[in-house]
Amino acid sequence: MFRKLVTIEETQKIICQHFKPHPLGTEEIHLLNAAGRTLAEDVTATLNIPPFDRSTVDGYAVNAEDTFGAEENRPITLKLTSIVNIGEMPKTKVTKGKTAEIVTGAPIPQGADAVVMLEHTERANSNVSIFSPVVKDENIMKTASDIRKGQKILTKGTPLNSRQIGMLAAIGKAKSKVYRTPRIAVLSTGPEITEPGKKLAPAKIYDINAYSLSVAVTESGADPIYLGVIQDDLNELQKALKNALASADMVITSGGVSVGPKDIMPRAVNSLGKPGLIVCGISIKPGKPATIASIYGKPVFSLPGHPASALLVFDLLVRPLIQQMARKEVAKPTEVKAVAGTRMFPAKGRRTYVMVKLARDKKDRLTATPLASSLSGAITTLAKADGYVQIPENVQFIEAGEQCTVHILNGQNPGN
Amino acid sequence: MFRKLVTIEETQKIICQHFKPHPLGTEEIHLLNAAGRTLAEDVTATLNIPPFDRSTVDGYAVNAEDTFGAEENRPITLKLTSIVNIGEMPKTKVTKGKTAEIVTGAPIPQGADAVVMLEHTERANSNVSIFSPVVKDENIMKTASDIRKGQKILTKGTPLNSRQIGMLAAIGKAKSKVYRTPRIAVLSTGPEITEPGKKLAPAKIYDINAYSLSVAVTESGADPIYLGVIQDDLNELQKALKNALASADMVITSGGVSVGPKDIMPRAVNSLGKPGLIVCGISIKPGKPATIASIYGKPVFSLPGHPASALLVFDLLVRPLIQQMARKEVAKPTEVKAVAGTRMFPAKGRRTYVMVKLARDKKDRLTATPLASSLSGAITTLAKADGYVQIPENVQFIEAGEQCTVHILNGQNPGN
Repeated sequence: MFRKLVTIEETQKIICQHFKPHPLGTEEIHLLNAAGRTLAEDVTATLNIPPFDRSTVDGYAVNAEDTFGAEENRPITLKLTSIVNIGEMPKTKVTKGKTAEIVTGAPIPQGADAVVMLEHTERANSNVSIFSPVVKDENIMKTASDIRKGQKILTKGTPLNSRQIGMLAAIGKAKSKVYRTPRIAVLSTGPEITEPGKKLAPAKIYDINAYSLSVAVTESGADPIYLGVIQDDLNELQKALKNALASADMVITSGGVSVGPKDIMPRAVNSLGKPGLIVCGISIKPGKPATIASIYGKPVFSLPGHPASALLVFDLLVRPLIQQMARKEVAKPTEVKAVAGTRMFPAKGRRTYVMVKLARDKKDRLTATPLASSLSGAITTLAKADGYVQIPENVQFIEAGEQCTVHILNGQNPGN
Repeated sequence: MFRKLVTIEETQKIICQHFKPHPLGTEEIHLLNAAGRTLAEDVTATLNIPPFDRSTVDGYAVNAEDTFGAEENRPITLKLTSIVNIGEMPKTKVTKGKTAEIVTGAPIPQGADAVVMLEHTERANSNVSIFSPVVKDENIMKTASDIRKGQKILTKGTPLNSRQIGMLAAIGKAKSKVYRTPRIAVLSTGPEITEPGKKLAPAKIYDINAYSLSVAVTESGADPIYLGVIQDDLNELQKALKNALASADMVITSGGVSVGPKDIMPRAVNSLGKPGLIVCGISIKPGKPATIASIYGKPVFSLPGHPASALLVFDLLVRPLIQQMARKEVAKPTEVKAVAGTRMFPAKGRRTYVMVKLARDKKDRLTATPLASSLSGAITTLAKADGYVQIPENVQFIEAGEQCTVHILNGQNPGN
């Protein structure tokens, strides 16, 4: 098995070459559950909106011609013959010299071609005085003026929000075809790790990664399948990975990728199918031992056991691919400029990512201070970090006070 | 019943006075479902992290003193007496002149106080040559160096993301106490409206608002209770509102608030409890007929039937309150500067919100062009709009080419 480190850019290229995010299939769901989902069909209006000529005001439906010449002090009087209620088809035609009372949204009765606003009328028994003329179509929202039957109103690939879902409701749809949400299996391995909630034996620690990575999957717009801690044994791992690949669209593992004597994760993954391992170590720090496999087209990311390293590699490589699979618009990571709080060194020959905390210094400059550089596995680093600074391979160091770019971590507020 | 229009600022003040978002109560949920929820308890570490001294490298556990003086060409030889596996408590003590093989993450055996990296050693049978000295504690992550038992690691009110959830997992928590998600009942009324998915009778149109507002509730971080279309009848409405208030933390209605003869929503709402209606009409366009009630402390927003108006008032007033109730950090609405594509007029004496579409003009300037100004009820306006321009009451108009601020609608990309 090869173990040649590749750069982060090469890794991204290899991921692009192997995983062309193809549609995961579609499903029909109720629109009330469709917030954030992506439309998997072109939607064509099956009716006109509005389906009939509607009054846009409260008033009197008239023949516009009947009102010509009406003035404030010389009204024209029409005969009230009917009332048009909203939600009911008018029963009476409005003929010359006649009028029908109408409310906003009600259908325009046959024969009428305009509506006089209530404010410009006065009624005495069945006589309605019109004080201001109207022109043809005035105060009428015409049939199909908003949407025409047969018109394509939304196209395949549109992300659905409250407004698009309102539009689908308008044409009477209660359900819609959307792309299936990617299912991502997440498991951890390591002889020392124990699932949270269970009793901790001596020499053991609690597993962090299956929890933090499952939640990161949710945050990326996919559904995690939490598989917990799998025993650090080649057969057990192969069995678990096989099952995971049968039901999931991607598998994320953590642990078992160090270069120590028990480096079994790459071996287990590579045995599952073709082409197998495609990246076996990345020249980054942290995250160097990460491996990536393609098993008959399905990605398997094996991340390091260190929680901060696992989440960093997730952010750099896994999240963008999940978002593509989920057909979510990939939000550009937020970046802010800050000054380095202390000198920051890269690891020799590796792209280095330094977790930092942001704060304002005395001069009110935004300052990025590295967190717990000595404890790359520290859990608190994770929760305290606002983002990371990337140090290129060819840079000796970033000097204290020098400007640097901070990539804000998902869910952090770059505010101050 | 009063009907005095108040300004948008007065309305916001009245909302603040009446609805002090108090905790909705808490619930214990599994951390795998806790993404985006807010912690309702201070969390104190119930164990040290790490719980024992751990090796940070693969190598040999030693007494540091034993290695003093070791050099590349003059190694010191120690006797290998045991192997420490990860996840197991060491059985043998490391005494003077002795050493134990150890892997990354394994517990430091008694007697040892440093670890020599594998790279600086050479083994022949049970003899281990050390080529480089180590000092006390070198390559050891000490007990509690990350988190000390009894230390407060997360405080009440913290929004939970993948990193915080990782930290809770680290101390063995599988569940956590979080604030309950607000439940928001949504209903529509109007004699002309029909629920999507049902057959449309003549003179009827499909209801948009109960769908679009329910989804907007989801987007704001709360759980909608969809109640659909309630008959336009005082008794039916009162009954439905009473039931809604019994189970929901807020009620949002649409329709029935015009100034027409069938203006029954405010009457129905006002009958439900004290103090009743607190805002009855807002001097904005669109959205003027919106009313707000407080029923024994629970907010009832009655929005206009026009879909664009209903969603605008939701954005201006309802969404911020829901986000406060949900204890989500209220994301500042995105704003972009653009030039007005055409002259925009405000409604006389009312704060006016003009829905606009953004595009680049020939000079590559971001241009805001009003959508379908003549059809304020048009559904397509909703789906096409990128945002809105606010025109103050005292402004005559915004001239074409003049700079204006566009408030980007939730879920839209201000990109180009």
